[in-house]
Amino acid sequence: MSAKRTYTFAFDCPDRVGIITRTAGLFASHGGWVEEASQFSDEESNRFFSRMVVRAETLPFDIEVLKRKVEPLAQEMSMNWRLVDSDQLKRVVLMCSKGSHCMTDLLDRWKTGDLVCDIACVISNHEDLRSLVEWYGIPFEYVPVDKDNKAAGFAKTEQLIDEYRADCIVLARYMQILPQNLCEKYRHKVINIHHSFLPSFIGAKPYHQASRRGVKLIGATCHYVTEDLDEGPIIEQDVARVSHEQSVDDLVRLGKDVEKTVLARGLRNHLEDRVLVYGNKTIVF
Amino acid sequence: MSAKRTYTFAFDCPDRVGIITRTAGLFASHGGWVEEASQFSDEESNRFFSRMVVRAETLPFDIEVLKRKVEPLAQEMSMNWRLVDSDQLKRVVLMCSKGSHCMTDLLDRWKTGDLVCDIACVISNHEDLRSLVEWYGIPFEYVPVDKDNKAAGFAKTEQLIDEYRADCIVLARYMQILPQNLCEKYRHKVINIHHSFLPSFIGAKPYHQASRRGVKLIGATCHYVTEDLDEGPIIEQDVARVSHEQSVDDLVRLGKDVEKTVLARGLRNHLEDRVLVYGNKTIVF
Amino acid sequence: MSAKRTYTFAFDCPDRVGIITRTAGLFASHGGWVEEASQFSDEESNRFFSRMVVRAETLPFDIEVLKRKVEPLAQEMSMNWRLVDSDQLKRVVLMCSKGSHCMTDLLDRWKTGDLVCDIACVISNHEDLRSLVEWYGIPFEYVPVDKDNKAAGFAKTEQLIDEYRADCIVLARYMQILPQNLCEKYRHKVINIHHSFLPSFIGAKPYHQASRRGVKLIGATCHYVTEDLDEGPIIEQDVARVSHEQSVDDLVRLGKDVEKTVLARGLRNHLEDRVLVYGNKTIVF
Amino acid sequence: MSAKRTYTFAFDCPDRVGIITRTAGLFASHGGWVEEASQFSDEESNRFFSRMVVRAETLPFDIEVLKRKVEPLAQEMSMNWRLVDSDQLKRVVLMCSKGSHCMTDLLDRWKTGDLVCDIACVISNHEDLRSLVEWYGIPFEYVPVDKDNKAAGFAKTEQLIDEYRADCIVLARYMQILPQNLCEKYRHKVINIHHSFLPSFIGAKPYHQASRRGVKLIGATCHYVTEDLDEGPIIEQDVARVSHEQSVDDLVRLGKDVEKTVLARGLRNHLEDRVLVYGNKTIVF
Repeated sequence: MSAKRTYTFAFDCPDRVGIITRTAGLFASHGGWVEEASQFSDEESNRFFSRMVVRAETLPFDIEVLKRKVEPLAQEMSMNWRLVDSDQLKRVVLMCSKGSHCMTDLLDRWKTGDLVCDIACVISNHEDLRSLVEWYGIPFEYVPVDKDNKAAGFAKTEQLIDEYRADCIVLARYMQILPQNLCEKYRHKVINIHHSFLPSFIGAKPYHQASRRGVKLIGATCHYVTEDLDEGPIIEQDVARVSHEQSVDDLVRLGKDVEKTVLARGLRNHLEDRVLVYGNKTIVF
Repeated sequence: MSAKRTYTFAFDCPDRVGIITRTAGLFASHGGWVEEASQFSDEESNRFFSRMVVRAETLPFDIEVLKRKVEPLAQEMSMNWRLVDSDQLKRVVLMCSKGSHCMTDLLDRWKTGDLVCDIACVISNHEDLRSLVEWYGIPFEYVPVDKDNKAAGFAKTEQLIDEYRADCIVLARYMQILPQNLCEKYRHKVINIHHSFLPSFIGAKPYHQASRRGVKLIGATCHYVTEDLDEGPIIEQDVARVSHEQSVDDLVRLGKDVEKTVLARGLRNHLEDRVLVYGNKTIVF
Repeated sequence: MSAKRTYTFAFDCPDRVGIITRTAGLFASHGGWVEEASQFSDEESNRFFSRMVVRAETLPFDIEVLKRKVEPLAQEMSMNWRLVDSDQLKRVVLMCSKGSHCMTDLLDRWKTGDLVCDIACVISNHEDLRSLVEWYGIPFEYVPVDKDNKAAGFAKTEQLIDEYRADCIVLARYMQILPQNLCEKYRHKVINIHHSFLPSFIGAKPYHQASRRGVKLIGATCHYVTEDLDEGPIIEQDVARVSHEQSVDDLVRLGKDVEKTVLARGLRNHLEDRVLVYGNKTIVF
Repeated sequence: MSAKRTYTFAFDCPDRVGIITRTAGLFASHGGWVEEASQFSDEESNRFFSRMVVRAETLPFDIEVLKRKVEPLAQEMSMNWRLVDSDQLKRVVLMCSKGSHCMTDLLDRWKTGDLVCDIACVISNHEDLRSLVEWYGIPFEYVPVDKDNKAAGFAKTEQLIDEYRADCIVLARYMQILPQNLCEKYRHKVINIHHSFLPSFIGAKPYHQASRRGVKLIGATCHYVTEDLDEGPIIEQDVARVSHEQSVDDLVRLGKDVEKTVLARGLRNHLEDRVLVYGNKTIVF
């Protein structure tokens, strides 16, 4: 991956002859150097998906001008599209509960430059991780979400997310279910890590469910949050081998490694605009 | 694995102090050389599981005498137990439909000595694989199972299984659901390969289900067949990575590799008496 | 994967602005529907690699005409290129020794349509697999390669390969080292499966080497054969987990599964013209 | 895993009839409840390996008495043996350089109780990780190891290791080669993580080597350090899939996940006395 400034153009549209030529041609006609290009034609839906990364320095104008040049083509082709500037880091709000494994992992990746984003703040319904988060110089917002007071908690949460101008919300083992309006407001921008290989073991205590069923692999799933619990578009999954020797506590421990790795991979793909959602599925370039 | 004659003693019983000492001691007191030993204590159920492999040549008597010597201990300890002779090959009946990938794979493993058993016959509801099976010198029994005539088909199937004196029945992508009485009669002796990572995608067309859900891994599950479809004790599972690029046809093709490998591993473990069933779970030593 | 007729255009050339536009544009200008397109820019070598699959039916002329239209562009861009017709199946010569696991696997994939090619013949220095091969209706050529008579054996081998007009030679656990002139004559067309995770354990008896070193994973490598033993460009690799419990015989047995799967994947990629060689490395689209 | 106090007895000795009976019997005769037991007979060397975990509370005496009771048997059987008390946490000295991924990971596992040990101190030849380490309340010792001054640096290092009474030294991406005398003094107690799938890519810059060779998987190896660089007994290994798309920088980034996971698994096994070394290989129970 180049650390140079790039513009990433991601889109989908009805499939037809000449899409690549026209879009690549638009960049080329202004001298734009495409350093990465991916395409996918979905035969079932007859839809075309693409992601192109152009070196900013090779274009004679800025991204706003480029957007205006893309617009007519996008309209003609009926594209859903976005054009993003690598210098405009996405603002990420992390949400967590008491467990530290995903947070420690994400924060180290962020600090060492493997996850390129701004972490605007961390919101948690517990104080446990405050000190860790603040060590990284990130604001920590404690927002209790009590059984009897969920509405107030989530109102406060929403207000903070707005104030911190979040582009992306990551539920890093946040143990609460987000209210529907928040899911809709940040559609395809809320990323969750579920501690099972979905669609197996939806809902609470998936490792207990896995142990009862006697599976020989456990997994984790990174997905966009939608109004249907654990049913949103899957970004990334992975598994780890287990046997009869592992108790539920062992599954929880072994699962942590899968959870943190899968979440980091999924988030990275999201941050690099590699993920296109169509229906309830993702294309990950 | 030694090719020498061995006796395998597999059992489970309520956990208590001294089980290993007593069982290992029984063999040792007659000079029996234990070449493999595995134990597992399940804290939840307070149950003990073990498998020991003894070299036959080191004992001064045959397996029938050994059984009589084991019996009092087994009774005292309330064991479920079996003692099997490596020279008594298990008689396996393979059942298949049209697909050849599992059959080709199993037959080659059998012919080259990687799966140590007698294949008594192959039963199929289609003629497609007759020639392949007969090339291996194995009887091929064609038993159509029509929608309108299932009872007759399965009566014939059961008769054949009995006549061929099956110790084990393998559903190598046999596309029919066995009747309940057969499942019960051959409890923990009927092995199926299901083409999904159970408990995801139970029932028909799991690759279609997987494609619709947009999972990033597909899997296969080898399990004992019980009266509840795809709910029996899991012996082995594995997965393969997929992406948006794979159509349902691709999933079917990629899944074949997982299916045949997982079935072969599960069957091998069964044949070597490495699998102990407890409740709806397996211990695989 | 579509079963419709397609033309696959694979090339590499010095990187510059506009390559995608020009090549995709060439197809689009004649109405050609690109159903798959992959690109890669190697920053280190400043070289561009691509593979495009066009639906034949959408072009108003045949592949010979298309080739003539591609030529000027290819020359201008200094491309290494090939344009292949999915209806022109590649002619594959399989070479084997005594071991059947790779052969059984490849032949079943071929018979069931998962490997799309013509298998021209099988050449072996042992008679063991004749009957299996002939069951599939494929000519079996026995060419002994004795210690004292290698030159004659390989002269006969080369003659057969020429007579059968091989496009591709697959060493499916053929235990002999091909002579240098044959490697050069069929450069990047001879595919071998080596039974280790290269570059570990080059040469003879890799499972013995692996056992001595005490590795916790064993592997297999599918690569193009060059004049340097086990040093050619790697197409595909995979591994399997092992432990202290596995003897060398167990490693050999477990390794077979990795070998046959890796060989089949590598060969499939080659047959679909997904593999581009550059220096001693491959791009696999 | 039980959190109750346990004694772990690990040993190897020449194989013979009755070892299990005698050792298990010794515990049973005093009422000792064996909650885990593993055995392995190595046919090649005719050596027997075992690890047994006994619940301390079920024995009527302490570990010192138990040791005295084990001694005569151990002598008779010519055992290499150890008997360790779960309440006596191993004292671990971590050594690192600038990279934080392994350290962050280990420290979080330690803090959350997944790695059960005392971390005596961290020794580093750079100051970069001081603040992180001290946040966890662990002493940080800066010991520069300059090209011109290695002897002094390692003398200081050795002195610290002694002062902190280390039972185990972990090179968590410490980029220096330990002097031979230190390796010998702490034989099978110094654990390193090497950033390749050994024996591939021994020595410096393994990801560069991997990229040049064009491998399709990269790996990491956790091993005991011996006087031969990267040649010590392997405890654990794993791999991650890569393709032509990954630059060396990408390999470095992807490799970090493998490194930290493999190191944590290997260290955990060491801390639980699951690893027995024999020759240049390990048995990992």
